[in-house]
Amino acid sequence: DRPLALIAGPCQMESRDHALEVADALAAIAGAADMPLIFKTSFDKANRTSLSGARGVGMAAALPVLAEIRETLGCAVLTDVHEAGQCAAVAEAVDVLQIPAFLCRQTDLLVAAARTGAVVNVKKGQFLAPWDMVNVVAKLDQSGDGKVLVTERGASFGYNTLVTDMRGLPLMARQTGCPVVFDATHSVQQPGGQGGASGGQREFAPVLARAAVAVGVAAVFIETHPDPDRAPSDGPAMIALRDMPAVLEVLGALDRVAKANPVCL
Amino acid sequence: DRPLALIAGPCQMESRDHALEVADALAAIAGAADMPLIFKTSFDKANRTSLSGARGVGMAAALPVLAEIRETLGCAVLTDVHEAGQCAAVAEAVDVLQIPAFLCRQTDLLVAAARTGAVVNVKKGQFLAPWDMVNVVAKLDQSGDGKVLVTERGASFGYNTLVTDMRGLPLMARQTGCPVVFDATHSVQQPGGQGGASGGQREFAPVLARAAVAVGVAAVFIETHPDPDRAPSDGPAMIALRDMPAVLEVLGALDRVAKANPVCL
Amino acid sequence: DRPLALIAGPCQMESRDHALEVADALAAIAGAADMPLIFKTSFDKANRTSLSGARGVGMAAALPVLAEIRETLGCAVLTDVHEAGQCAAVAEAVDVLQIPAFLCRQTDLLVAAARTGAVVNVKKGQFLAPWDMVNVVAKLDQSGDGKVLVTERGASFGYNTLVTDMRGLPLMARQTGCPVVFDATHSVQQPGGQGGASGGQREFAPVLARAAVAVGVAAVFIETHPDPDRAPSDGPAMIALRDMPAVLEVLGALDRVAKANPVCL
Amino acid sequence: DRPLALIAGPCQMESRDHALEVADALAAIAGAADMPLIFKTSFDKANRTSLSGARGVGMAAALPVLAEIRETLGCAVLTDVHEAGQCAAVAEAVDVLQIPAFLCRQTDLLVAAARTGAVVNVKKGQFLAPWDMVNVVAKLDQSGDGKVLVTERGASFGYNTLVTDMRGLPLMARQTGCPVVFDATHSVQQPGGQGGASGGQREFAPVLARAAVAVGVAAVFIETHPDPDRAPSDGPAMIALRDMPAVLEVLGALDRVAKANPVCL
Repeated sequence: DRPLALIAGPCQMESRDHALEVADALAAIAGAADMPLIFKTSFDKANRTSLSGARGVGMAAALPVLAEIRETLGCAVLTDVHEAGQCAAVAEAVDVLQIPAFLCRQTDLLVAAARTGAVVNVKKGQFLAPWDMVNVVAKLDQSGDGKVLVTERGASFGYNTLVTDMRGLPLMARQTGCPVVFDATHSVQQPGGQGGASGGQREFAPVLARAAVAVGVAAVFIETHPDPDRAPSDGPAMIALRDMPAVLEVLGALDRVAKANPVCL
Repeated sequence: DRPLALIAGPCQMESRDHALEVADALAAIAGAADMPLIFKTSFDKANRTSLSGARGVGMAAALPVLAEIRETLGCAVLTDVHEAGQCAAVAEAVDVLQIPAFLCRQTDLLVAAARTGAVVNVKKGQFLAPWDMVNVVAKLDQSGDGKVLVTERGASFGYNTLVTDMRGLPLMARQTGCPVVFDATHSVQQPGGQGGASGGQREFAPVLARAAVAVGVAAVFIETHPDPDRAPSDGPAMIALRDMPAVLEVLGALDRVAKANPVCL
Repeated sequence: DRPLALIAGPCQMESRDHALEVADALAAIAGAADMPLIFKTSFDKANRTSLSGARGVGMAAALPVLAEIRETLGCAVLTDVHEAGQCAAVAEAVDVLQIPAFLCRQTDLLVAAARTGAVVNVKKGQFLAPWDMVNVVAKLDQSGDGKVLVTERGASFGYNTLVTDMRGLPLMARQTGCPVVFDATHSVQQPGGQGGASGGQREFAPVLARAAVAVGVAAVFIETHPDPDRAPSDGPAMIALRDMPAVLEVLGALDRVAKANPVCL
Repeated sequence: DRPLALIAGPCQMESRDHALEVADALAAIAGAADMPLIFKTSFDKANRTSLSGARGVGMAAALPVLAEIRETLGCAVLTDVHEAGQCAAVAEAVDVLQIPAFLCRQTDLLVAAARTGAVVNVKKGQFLAPWDMVNVVAKLDQSGDGKVLVTERGASFGYNTLVTDMRGLPLMARQTGCPVVFDATHSVQQPGGQGGASGGQREFAPVLARAAVAVGVAAVFIETHPDPDRAPSDGPAMIALRDMPAVLEVLGALDRVAKANPVCL
């Protein structure tokens, strides 16, 4: 199996300069870790906890910046879509269309994303079992011929808490036949945990990432920021950019053990 | 407090004749039970488990029928919306716009629904705590001046199962200040429980409805069908139309006890 | 079906005087509500969160007091047992032996309790499904010829929280054939929720009791105390004795509706 | 940090010959993997799902065999205790007394175990949060001066299912100060999942063990048997003895990465 890929970037695009700065830094960090980079950032946070939460620069401003990053850095670029009507335009600028977890059962969005021919990364809803993703992937497969990725990002566990069931990783791989991504950032989110905003347990993102990589995944998804405590969204769950090299070094070492000894269910 | 209202109808609109037949029958049944009726049916099931699941007659065909039912029966009419662009047109034909549970954090949809001035019934996501609804209602309140209803429909409990936390009913009432609806049908859904479709435990819908009404709610939401086992969606969770009078009789008696002795938190 | 019975008393026996005072008051309150009383108190809290938590007066001191209450008030008396060796002696003094939830799978304790011939009330573990109680009841049935009661007291729901699945009440009744008790006090416990002690949500005990009674149960279990905030254990979950009459009045009215309209699964 | 230790053996002692055979084989396997072995087997399965489940050879028969294994193989030996009265005698024959998960809050048992001076391995109840173990360990620390181990074996997740929250491993290590063990066998149990017996997902035991070892633990606990499908208890969750070498090889490689890069919370 191929070595671990890294999907990383700031939760939302704050400006062209900010995005380019983080992308540049990540390209160097991923290169040093020998991991292919897929740069991720969102143009719209469409489901913030409250109206006053910053939503991002918007699609019109973001797409040219994403295209520029793809071209100048030579890395793949990923962003998420929220309505069927956005898919075609976004697919012009990026390599991977991402379906948010809350929307993973919205048929029209899945069909529109698949029809673009882009790679589609669909996040497993917090309300779904690993085996339920077979139905989600079937909607995509029947609507396009692009590649599909499935992402684990935690399951509801009581109130305001998520838990990651590591059994789900090889189980989804076997049942869907798709590469599996582990989203370490949103798996440590505490939804609604700060009243008007979601909390997070940044210190556990590398912990869960270790576990997932040791089980065996195609990629890890880690949101990162030069100054997470000042980030406009998901700051409590994001890792500081300067901590990424050390995190990736351990993940790379674990990945080499895991890929040499794949789990066979 | 006012007596229990009934939100009821078939899961999806199958045809004009079918909708009128069920609405007629429900108007008589609700009248006999002395409960105000809000007729509910969906024009589009936008998040079916699989692509091959029937989605309904569509918005263009359904809106005139909903308007006709409202006019001829004199009852209020409710249907759900899935994208922001649908809200204005739907609000012309119905009294209550319903926000599906998976979409209860999609800001644009909430804002567009609130701006119509119609009543908005927002379902609590399976991934939210009762107190998280304060943030959802705030988005609606800040965007319109219509009335808001909040609906309990179960919380994720392990895989393929929901559980209803009855504490959430008075807690949401107090914290949001909105009338609370209990959706007995979807609370007994078994998401993904039949592989390519959701299962349900029809026999427990009246059980949970009893519990919720005894605690004290403004309305119960019960999907019903002349022949649930042949319904195109949610059949395993729907109650047969012929069983509704007996169910409502018990709920009415419990409601009288509850309304005479309201829970004060 | 017979009218609702009341299992009530202080969490632990604090002294002979205290027990007699509460039992006297409860006999009057239950009589006024037309409910048979089963007086409950514990001689040993064997699983306190910390070593420094008060455990009670002990078996030797408590049994004569329990026998005295049974004789002078003419009500049934219930207490819990923790090791097999306690069962025979306790059964001399009380009518009902109660098996704590954590111990509901300990075979020797179940067998010893059943062999006494006393009624056994077994609480469903926080880690069990309603249908799992069939196995627990079978152990009792195969070991004695006494009557068995099964008690719902909440299921684990994430961390430090319990949830009550009201579907479990009729389901256990049908599958075990035993009368079902709803324990409103421990269902609102927050295990470990205060660090060194369990928290509780006293205000929700009557809320859940309403729901359970409306569904239909043989008895409610409510711990009560003249001054819950000074009680040595489970104070946050206990109801003040002075609030019991109003709670029972509503429960009685709901019970009459429920018993006239039993749930048939 | 020291390299991974292995706690392993058959779920229950079936006979002297059987125990010696498995212990012999495990000593060779653990030696080849460079892991210290703690041989584990139970003399009494005190909480079987049903009365007809085999409980084991009993304490009197088992203790001499455990002592013999300790002496002849030179490895440490572990077994579980169920009542306070058993602790002193068992501590004569074994190095580690284990407290079963259901009993982890039974004060008398904890105190009696701690007083023996033996190492005590206490399993986290399926109904506890990782931070709740601080209280459990405090009971042990205040009652003895022996070493304490804490074991993760899954948390209740809906009905008949457990989930392992990998965040709990470093969290328990930091909060209790004790070495943390991961029990891969019981974490994949499906309690009550076969009606009259618990099910298991043997194929996921090595998957979860990988994850836990990559996060960093002091020991893994794996039940194993020459012929799991014919084992009298927990067969569906046990690994075949012949599969152990391959499992340990991967775990050893992951452990070396983890111990070189410890998680610091």
